[in-house]
Amino acid sequence: MSLLLVSKNRNLKPYKKALLDLDPNLDIEIWPGINKAEQVQFAVAWQHPANLFEKFPNLKVISSLGAGVDHLLSDDTIPESIQFTRIVAPSLSGQMADYVLTAVLNIIRKTDQYTDQQRKAIWKPLSSIKKHDVTIGVMGLGEIGSEVAKMLVNNGFSVTGWSKSKKSVNGVACYAKDELGSFLAKTNIAVCLLPLTPETNNILNLELFKGLKKPSFLINVARGDHLVEEDLIYALDTDQISHATLDVFSEEPLPESHPFWGREKITLTPHIASVTDPQESAELILENYKRMLSGMELLHKVNREAGY
Amino acid sequence: MSLLLVSKNRNLKPYKKALLDLDPNLDIEIWPGINKAEQVQFAVAWQHPANLFEKFPNLKVISSLGAGVDHLLSDDTIPESIQFTRIVAPSLSGQMADYVLTAVLNIIRKTDQYTDQQRKAIWKPLSSIKKHDVTIGVMGLGEIGSEVAKMLVNNGFSVTGWSKSKKSVNGVACYAKDELGSFLAKTNIAVCLLPLTPETNNILNLELFKGLKKPSFLINVARGDHLVEEDLIYALDTDQISHATLDVFSEEPLPESHPFWGREKITLTPHIASVTDPQESAELILENYKRMLSGMELLHKVNREAGY
Repeated sequence: MSLLLVSKNRNLKPYKKALLDLDPNLDIEIWPGINKAEQVQFAVAWQHPANLFEKFPNLKVISSLGAGVDHLLSDDTIPESIQFTRIVAPSLSGQMADYVLTAVLNIIRKTDQYTDQQRKAIWKPLSSIKKHDVTIGVMGLGEIGSEVAKMLVNNGFSVTGWSKSKKSVNGVACYAKDELGSFLAKTNIAVCLLPLTPETNNILNLELFKGLKKPSFLINVARGDHLVEEDLIYALDTDQISHATLDVFSEEPLPESHPFWGREKITLTPHIASVTDPQESAELILENYKRMLSGMELLHKVNREAGY
Repeated sequence: MSLLLVSKNRNLKPYKKALLDLDPNLDIEIWPGINKAEQVQFAVAWQHPANLFEKFPNLKVISSLGAGVDHLLSDDTIPESIQFTRIVAPSLSGQMADYVLTAVLNIIRKTDQYTDQQRKAIWKPLSSIKKHDVTIGVMGLGEIGSEVAKMLVNNGFSVTGWSKSKKSVNGVACYAKDELGSFLAKTNIAVCLLPLTPETNNILNLELFKGLKKPSFLINVARGDHLVEEDLIYALDTDQISHATLDVFSEEPLPESHPFWGREKITLTPHIASVTDPQESAELILENYKRMLSGMELLHKVNREAGY
């Protein structure tokens, strides 16, 4: 029995080390140097190469290395019999909440404009946006989204939430799937924390932007494919959206020639809002690996039908 | 009886309007166009001209337009018999807490470096500073300082506090005046919220910076004269301090030729951390004006000996 770690773009050695620190008897393989494919029963994957999993006849479980599972669901070659799980580490929600709070505070405090003024040695107080004059709308109220919403409420913000099935989060005005229009009409700052599914692909488009309350802002920390990039540029140019903070992109790394880099009204970061910690992840991976070996119910199972 | 509004650098018309909205019968004068100096019993001042108050024989109370009173205390020509008060508006503490939280989050999230990378179209994830690896030390635990400290605690930060007389704030490790060394040794991010007095003038100097735990950061939101500017530049150049966020300066507006503008390791804003709101201030001014007229105890009296 062995555990496989696979990713096209992440260094997995720290994860192997963290797993072995917890249990030195583990048999761990890192793609591409695989010795005994037939021994692999459990895989941990992030952006795996196409058709890879056909090579493991005894594979039972694939765990995403993060909270998102779109990279697994979009691979049709993975047999239906394989169970997907994901890592829901408490620090992921906490980091995400901090990133979103930072972005919101920088929007209302006009940090970007002050940075620009500093560069030009211009002393000019600007009118800030008052905290009580904006509503933040969290799209996606899963484990991370609801944590983010709660944290914004704790910091005195007015918060709305939108999710496929109507949720209940203390202090948050929650809307269900078919109430998107009402949700947007109440929301100034839209924060995307949705899972990426065929239904949510391209959801951040011009029609959605037009539905937001003005002044309108966008924070996308979910997946690049949630956003129609041309629509955002048009919305910024026509002042439909005043500012966007983006951590995720359809193509990552964002190509050097991409128009997002140079836009004054865009703040972008290189997919760092919430970063998996090897130690914390190793505990969660090992827990599910042992549950699988002893035939117990797995934690954080993914409903492949629902897409999350 | 009349109420005088005086400032060399603030537009006071919104304050006059807000006061008259509350009580249309008020007799309000705005310096320099004063009609009946002998009628003035109550003045509201922010950066007043030298020797001005000698001209008002019946003046009893001067209220600062903000929380700081150093501009009043430093004027020796104001008779001892005149009572000083200040404005402690709830929104001032809230705005200050938000500014400090924004600065702290931007420090640990390396926002300045990401902004610089965006300008150069560089996609490069940086290691962030973990929230649990830094301690924030609030210098000055008055009404604003303790509010700031509480808010940082609520956001999961480890917080220390230092004040002239030892205070008690929930979740904050508090140190008294003679425990400055122990306070600094536990503190990575020093946040100055002290009143400006002869004792605290130039307190942010190289010796203090050297006492901080590394990595060390400075946030000054109190007064420019708390800081020895050359010492900060030396401390940044020698990596004693990794980054400074400054909202206040010895000379404001900060002269265009000042070395602070161009420093990569300095984030500066034009004294906007916490801005008095005319409506909110008017209520507090009027309350004290009426208390004075009816001989009641004033709110937020200043101890001229202590300096705050």
